[in-house]
Amino acid sequence: MKPIAITQGDPAGIGPEIAALCFLEQPELLRGCFVAGDVATLRRACAVLKRKQAVPVALIDSPQDAWTVPPRCVPVLQVVDASEPLPAWGRQSPVAGRAAAQAIIWAADAALRGEVQAVVTAPLNKESLREAGIEYPGHTELLQARAAAFAGMPVRDMPVRMMLANEELRTVLVSIHVSLRHAIEAVTRDAVLQTIQIAHHALKRALGREPRISVAGLNPHAGEGGLFGREELEIIAPAIGEARSQGIDVSGPYPPDTVFMAARQSRSSAHPTDAVVAMYHDQGLIPVKYLGLDQGVNVSLGLPFVRTSPDHGTAFDLAGTGRADPSSLVQAIRMAKRLSAGPAST
Amino acid sequence: MKPIAITQGDPAGIGPEIAALCFLEQPELLRGCFVAGDVATLRRACAVLKRKQAVPVALIDSPQDAWTVPPRCVPVLQVVDASEPLPAWGRQSPVAGRAAAQAIIWAADAALRGEVQAVVTAPLNKESLREAGIEYPGHTELLQARAAAFAGMPVRDMPVRMMLANEELRTVLVSIHVSLRHAIEAVTRDAVLQTIQIAHHALKRALGREPRISVAGLNPHAGEGGLFGREELEIIAPAIGEARSQGIDVSGPYPPDTVFMAARQSRSSAHPTDAVVAMYHDQGLIPVKYLGLDQGVNVSLGLPFVRTSPDHGTAFDLAGTGRADPSSLVQAIRMAKRLSAGPAST
Repeated sequence: MKPIAITQGDPAGIGPEIAALCFLEQPELLRGCFVAGDVATLRRACAVLKRKQAVPVALIDSPQDAWTVPPRCVPVLQVVDASEPLPAWGRQSPVAGRAAAQAIIWAADAALRGEVQAVVTAPLNKESLREAGIEYPGHTELLQARAAAFAGMPVRDMPVRMMLANEELRTVLVSIHVSLRHAIEAVTRDAVLQTIQIAHHALKRALGREPRISVAGLNPHAGEGGLFGREELEIIAPAIGEARSQGIDVSGPYPPDTVFMAARQSRSSAHPTDAVVAMYHDQGLIPVKYLGLDQGVNVSLGLPFVRTSPDHGTAFDLAGTGRADPSSLVQAIRMAKRLSAGPAST
Repeated sequence: MKPIAITQGDPAGIGPEIAALCFLEQPELLRGCFVAGDVATLRRACAVLKRKQAVPVALIDSPQDAWTVPPRCVPVLQVVDASEPLPAWGRQSPVAGRAAAQAIIWAADAALRGEVQAVVTAPLNKESLREAGIEYPGHTELLQARAAAFAGMPVRDMPVRMMLANEELRTVLVSIHVSLRHAIEAVTRDAVLQTIQIAHHALKRALGREPRISVAGLNPHAGEGGLFGREELEIIAPAIGEARSQGIDVSGPYPPDTVFMAARQSRSSAHPTDAVVAMYHDQGLIPVKYLGLDQGVNVSLGLPFVRTSPDHGTAFDLAGTGRADPSSLVQAIRMAKRLSAGPAST
């Protein structure tokens, strides 16, 4: 198996210290993982963890060297310009944005070249990215653009969808970082069908069996037969019909206010729902986040490589205190290993 | 204290049997409550409960007689035309719609005349209502129209908001039964301000102290500073500012995907959030329903009387089996008692 790259995230945020904590607390899980980033940034992060013994940071020369580093040691591949100064904790700056972007771009390219198995991204700060001249609303769009460029195709031919998952629920979103008005316009027959297909493909690979997918409606009560909106009748139901005709086990559209609850409750049934396709960002993220952020994982589906991330931000107020919680990053690494290894049974 | 009317709901649904179950299982709570409906309908409902002894149904002559009925007996005030046949279980029909509507209209008018303290409504079927010639998307709109007519004012001068509440979370909605497109149009400065004011007024009365209110944004990340929509900057934040200038303890707009989680987690803090104002139906209902339907209660705020209801439907597939769960109706009755009594401390 190839190694897994963990990008350090914004160096002014909690990314570097939670990455280091993962290596300390989950040595078995972290075998074959390494940080794509900056050695000085990781050394500073390790210093704030207040351990009795210094936490060792190992500079490695290539991804493959990750396998040779002893447990509870943090392997770092220097992919960030080391001549830049270390940015202050908890402040946005172009220096921080540049370092974060260099790590992501390196990791995406390494995955596209087949040098790493998967990419796990620690959180970044959009303002710092923008100050560094990198204009993307988030990781997903940046990775999508990089993958499309690598394949020599326009971005629109590389459809990517965000999945948010925890132990109880997986949701796959038709759109993400657009206004609610634009999100309604993005609910087209093609986009809904594509989301179902992408979710089906990724989950089939991960689960090793045909996944069951539910689709939420757009309007209250899924439109109540056309009374509160016609998108269910004219767009979503036809897209589901088309997906079913392709052999995908998908049903809906269901009333948005109960479809997530029903999927959660179905876990203990004979026919659990494996994922819910949500029509817009908050429809899918409200239920996944409702029980607490710690365990949520963000997965990009549709890219030519596996990419996961924690579902929290840079937490500038906590950065440098050593008190940040690495649970969500641990789950993201676990998910990346599972998705990139394929099902255990094959 | 005046009695509380429980409308029987659609006679073909689970309403009559869950109402009867409340009297059997919660005799203390049900003191002073009675069913506004039809005696034959309640007798049929009691017969399917499969108890060792027959469940007694008492025909009462006035709301005040509710106090004189012994525990575990079901007091019914005949407010429905008794000459109509009993509709079949689990089928929609104009007969069922007429009976449901007669009970609601009687109860609303009794509350407006001051004869009952509060109204708790068992679920109805919109199709049956429509077949009976009653064109309202739900209870709320019907009660609002009745209250406005009683006050001799246009419906628009009697703003009503729906609150959905369980043990963990209360959400108050800017709009309810409209398409998502129309819900976005309904997010105006006046409507948001009015929702905050109505929530503040009702919660202050119920809690006996100044409530703390959070307001959700409309767009992902609450618009991310205007990047994904400008409603937060131009509409929601100004409405919050206006409410604050009136002395209301309200803050936001917060990112929709975490504001409900944060409110739930704040319960154990020194400054818990008492309610979240949600911009549209599913934004507020997804989190309240996510953990399961049993405990959810729907409250109409802004009417000149207290009105609560369970947050489930008629469950036609269960009607007549005696297996329906009365928990949500029990919670609705408890909430109606609490809201109409005012805070215990006054």
